[in-house]
Amino acid sequence: MTEDNHASESHTDVLIIGAGPSGLMAAYWMSRCGVRARIIDKKPTKVFTGQADGLRVRTLEIFDSIGFQHRVQHEGHVTVEANFWVPGPDGNLIRQGPFCSSKVNESPFHNTLLNQGRIEQFILDSIKEHSGLKVERGIIAESFDYDENLKDDPDAYPITVKLRTLSDEEIKSPSVSGGGSPQAVQSGFDRSNLVSDDWEDLVQKSRSHQTKTEIIKAKYLIGCDGAHSWTRKQVDIPMVGSSTDHIWGVIDIIPISNFPDIRRLGTVTNAAGMILIIPRERQLVRLYVPVQVVDKATNGDARFDRSSITPEMIKERVQAILKPYTFDYKICDWWTAYQIGQRIAPTFAKDDRVFLAGDAVHTHSPKVGLGMNMSMQDGFNIGWKVALVATGVANPAILSTYNAERHHLAEMLLDFDRHWSGVFTENKPPEGGLGKTESMMKIVELFEDFADGLKAFYGASPLVCKLDNEQGLIPGHHLVPGERFPPVKLRKQADGNTQWTTRILESDGRFRLVILAGNVCDATQKQRIETLSHFLAGQLGENASPLSRYTVLPGRSGRPIDVVTIHSAPWKETEFFDFPEILRDFDDTMGWGYGKIWCDDACIWDRDCDGKGYERWGVDRMRGVMLIVRPDQYIGWVGELEDTDGMTRYLDGALIKAVPGK
Amino acid sequence: MTEDNHASESHTDVLIIGAGPSGLMAAYWMSRCGVRARIIDKKPTKVFTGQADGLRVRTLEIFDSIGFQHRVQHEGHVTVEANFWVPGPDGNLIRQGPFCSSKVNESPFHNTLLNQGRIEQFILDSIKEHSGLKVERGIIAESFDYDENLKDDPDAYPITVKLRTLSDEEIKSPSVSGGGSPQAVQSGFDRSNLVSDDWEDLVQKSRSHQTKTEIIKAKYLIGCDGAHSWTRKQVDIPMVGSSTDHIWGVIDIIPISNFPDIRRLGTVTNAAGMILIIPRERQLVRLYVPVQVVDKATNGDARFDRSSITPEMIKERVQAILKPYTFDYKICDWWTAYQIGQRIAPTFAKDDRVFLAGDAVHTHSPKVGLGMNMSMQDGFNIGWKVALVATGVANPAILSTYNAERHHLAEMLLDFDRHWSGVFTENKPPEGGLGKTESMMKIVELFEDFADGLKAFYGASPLVCKLDNEQGLIPGHHLVPGERFPPVKLRKQADGNTQWTTRILESDGRFRLVILAGNVCDATQKQRIETLSHFLAGQLGENASPLSRYTVLPGRSGRPIDVVTIHSAPWKETEFFDFPEILRDFDDTMGWGYGKIWCDDACIWDRDCDGKGYERWGVDRMRGVMLIVRPDQYIGWVGELEDTDGMTRYLDGALIKAVPGK
Repeated sequence: MTEDNHASESHTDVLIIGAGPSGLMAAYWMSRCGVRARIIDKKPTKVFTGQADGLRVRTLEIFDSIGFQHRVQHEGHVTVEANFWVPGPDGNLIRQGPFCSSKVNESPFHNTLLNQGRIEQFILDSIKEHSGLKVERGIIAESFDYDENLKDDPDAYPITVKLRTLSDEEIKSPSVSGGGSPQAVQSGFDRSNLVSDDWEDLVQKSRSHQTKTEIIKAKYLIGCDGAHSWTRKQVDIPMVGSSTDHIWGVIDIIPISNFPDIRRLGTVTNAAGMILIIPRERQLVRLYVPVQVVDKATNGDARFDRSSITPEMIKERVQAILKPYTFDYKICDWWTAYQIGQRIAPTFAKDDRVFLAGDAVHTHSPKVGLGMNMSMQDGFNIGWKVALVATGVANPAILSTYNAERHHLAEMLLDFDRHWSGVFTENKPPEGGLGKTESMMKIVELFEDFADGLKAFYGASPLVCKLDNEQGLIPGHHLVPGERFPPVKLRKQADGNTQWTTRILESDGRFRLVILAGNVCDATQKQRIETLSHFLAGQLGENASPLSRYTVLPGRSGRPIDVVTIHSAPWKETEFFDFPEILRDFDDTMGWGYGKIWCDDACIWDRDCDGKGYERWGVDRMRGVMLIVRPDQYIGWVGELEDTDGMTRYLDGALIKAVPGK
Repeated sequence: MTEDNHASESHTDVLIIGAGPSGLMAAYWMSRCGVRARIIDKKPTKVFTGQADGLRVRTLEIFDSIGFQHRVQHEGHVTVEANFWVPGPDGNLIRQGPFCSSKVNESPFHNTLLNQGRIEQFILDSIKEHSGLKVERGIIAESFDYDENLKDDPDAYPITVKLRTLSDEEIKSPSVSGGGSPQAVQSGFDRSNLVSDDWEDLVQKSRSHQTKTEIIKAKYLIGCDGAHSWTRKQVDIPMVGSSTDHIWGVIDIIPISNFPDIRRLGTVTNAAGMILIIPRERQLVRLYVPVQVVDKATNGDARFDRSSITPEMIKERVQAILKPYTFDYKICDWWTAYQIGQRIAPTFAKDDRVFLAGDAVHTHSPKVGLGMNMSMQDGFNIGWKVALVATGVANPAILSTYNAERHHLAEMLLDFDRHWSGVFTENKPPEGGLGKTESMMKIVELFEDFADGLKAFYGASPLVCKLDNEQGLIPGHHLVPGERFPPVKLRKQADGNTQWTTRILESDGRFRLVILAGNVCDATQKQRIETLSHFLAGQLGENASPLSRYTVLPGRSGRPIDVVTIHSAPWKETEFFDFPEILRDFDDTMGWGYGKIWCDDACIWDRDCDGKGYERWGVDRMRGVMLIVRPDQYIGWVGELEDTDGMTRYLDGALIKAVPGK
């Protein structure tokens, strides 16, 4: 602590504090975009058991755009239908359900349960695939200095942070190893519970740091350091909200039970209380149970006594509620207890130099399975923006959209959580048997789009160009700026392979011009595409094409803007070489860009590729439309194929023009 | 070589020589079944580029049963349609096609192209997941001794092999590092061409062997040591057949071409010659080109002069054939040249103690994309049989089925290859333009089932109980002993998750009783299931149940025979707990076997799960049927739900009864 004179000093463009789901997501972008970055975490290893487990549809789409959704799908447990058990007329528990979301087919993916530790592993693997960026573990940030005078100079390093390598003793302390982690987990399951690549991380936890302390100067700081965020405190941003009087126990077990729906998502409510049942991977089931209500009347700000809550106590509670069904377990993977609170920071950023993401700025109950999703999507949102600004590709003005986009959603999350928790913790059977179920379904419906991430509600900004008519260009148009590009499975013109747009619109750091080219077999339509291509090829005036005027990411060759064409003519009646050269993206070494032309036509050997993309997008199959899709797959701008001015305006606002000859 | 006195001596149940695709497949079973085994290879690393690349449908189903098909699907390139280019009436090349197999939807998977090196990596990862078995590299077998007198004693070690660790100099010699590997590969692509987990293998190629030589005594030996198999020579098994006069060049490149179908599977034939085009992963395309014909008339047994064939020469050949289209490349990943021959060993085994698999016993032209598939399926076939016999689970009599099953298929392969090569190498344009295409399509159709592995033609044996009526029990029945269990996507009764039977019938070393329970909502049918369950539960007499009488794999708890029930009643009208206890497989620690009851019902959120499994199997939805599926997913026996005698007879023939109290 007093060795400042021995501390080394170094510079980095981006420093990320905290390597949980949100920090890793931000780090993915640094790795992918070639940003000079560091990421530190105080814990000596990543998470292995317990913690978050719910993965919502939009999160899975993001995973697909990164490239590891197939691993989640292989290991995770899908839950689509939900069941609500309530006492029937005779007092015995009866099932209401299964209920299924009406939006269940709006994404190729379905809500999935998988341990947070696996997700962290997958993101780490993706980071490794693209760069040498490594999480530096067992390190804390000790002091913070911010020079406000430098905030408007994009080349300046206004942030100074002192890092310190923890000693082995410090690492063993509960505040580092995690207060919420298991206190008395059943033995015999630890090893079988981990996948082999987890183990390697655990074994290789050695910290090979050269110095005990280090001064880092950074252009940008992203604080992803959890509910007790050190970073947030440095920039004096408070958390607003309060704890409720609800205390919950949560336990991950392999059940031994004759309850019919122990492997199905749902709730059980009766006079004895309520349980939320969440089936998981590897035969695990997670149970959430309200275990105690702090008597606020007699004890104003009582914090509950965690030591009174044990796995045994949670088990007895579950047994009482499930009666007459039996319940027991021999294997407990993880458990904890917590007091529910809803808290949010009034802002998620300081001067667009320091950003906060995930639990550092919003905490809430974990039962709705949204926490990890919101956190990862925070990190995913700020990550590409900081990465593109730090590399000189994007206009620093886009940074303000982080707070605008994510704070609003966090407020919606807390609102959702308040409703959901409320319904949950009315600790009594519903009147008339069905009342509770109905009110739950109402809430679920209300928040369905939001919860699954099918809608993002991102407002107008330098990154979202809203249309005058919010419904879009044509009646029934579903391509809305500020919302994700709705996934569709397409055929590649050149080779006939099928792929979801979530993979095609890969998270590689580039904005994309997506040309829905319509029916290119029609002469008039073909002419429209040719006119657009002339413009894109720069044949309508020097430096007029947006495909070549902007800065390219470091180490990348090719265009700063990726162009993807999706036509609606029959696959067999169209040829890759029918399309204008500029859409086929020639490279001296790699040849033609065979992955650039796609077709919305049915494929007889792939049912998901049904040729109904244009219908799903609400776009006329003849006339098409074009759009700019942001690096995170949200739609930035939509316009007719002739609206090259609108497209250029959007891009000029977001990106920085390359300096000629540089 | 003269250090015999320093050689250590050790025992192993199974020694595998050669860690290519067939050897690794055999090793997978050793790892999965807990067999004491060793696997050696003379090369210091696995393959990284080039070699085989074609993965047929049945191979992909096997990968799914092992658990890595999702990785192949993520990285590989699917080819379904094929195009044949021939000169049209005006002499210019025209496309015939695309042609698509009529069987394209008989499997969840489609023929895929992916480098052999990745496949080896995936199998290695699976081996690592289940055991500590590691490939010992840079090691050769030097001497072999076989004591015929011990062949009938299952506990004896009749095989003695002396191993030697190669010196660095030896490893660098062409005979070890691979004569067919690249001689002058373009630089700059080596690294980008490898995936990160490949690199690790390359870096960790250190050979940490304690001794220079070692004597190993083994119960069984599996020789997977390629076309020049050392093992085959030790047991005096010849190769029968001959080289043809056809010489081919093959080149893996990233094409720069305006040929419309350069990214599509197909052929181009004209007066200048013929090309086979195979699109691959990572923008690669493989081209096979006949480059030279050895004049047999003047030079009886001429071996071609490989040095005369260069990438440049292959390129010029392609350019001439593709005219007027352009062709060039800057990146060449791998290339080679070879003389086509069809050779087969008259037997694949010696005394059912030494087995030979893959190229060691059959070689042929690589163009049909079958070589790696046949080899892996050889290894997959012999692997489980040796593993179960070595662990005392299965009757040694099953070992003879390896030669019976695989030799017949290898003969079919050579027959296929002769036809295919013939059509290919008629080095002239087809008469009438379409004649060639038509004759090709005929061959393709003829061998379609065989090539894709949809049919295996395994004959009657202790492992395949043929029905009197080869058509099956009921008209239209498609469950044929000796053929694979046709894949269907089902819903899990307990949680509603969907899964392909290729995953459900996991390759874990167990035989499976698959009960197609029919409509269990019907009282009569329910009674039939209950009667069967009484029998299975052993309630009809002591030790009468086949579920408990056989030996269990080492380290396994639970049943030697896995029971999977698949009913046809509506998912929502059926409960997991409706089924008899014996079908729900209770375990004291893990609770009920929620993965044991499946339902053939349509799922609204998964199009592949269409509720038409019984129709596909040709099984009556009311009455059902039952079958024994072998560990490799081939059907061993089929019978009515009452035919417990038939089932028991089959199992008694294949498995060894456990010694009570042992």
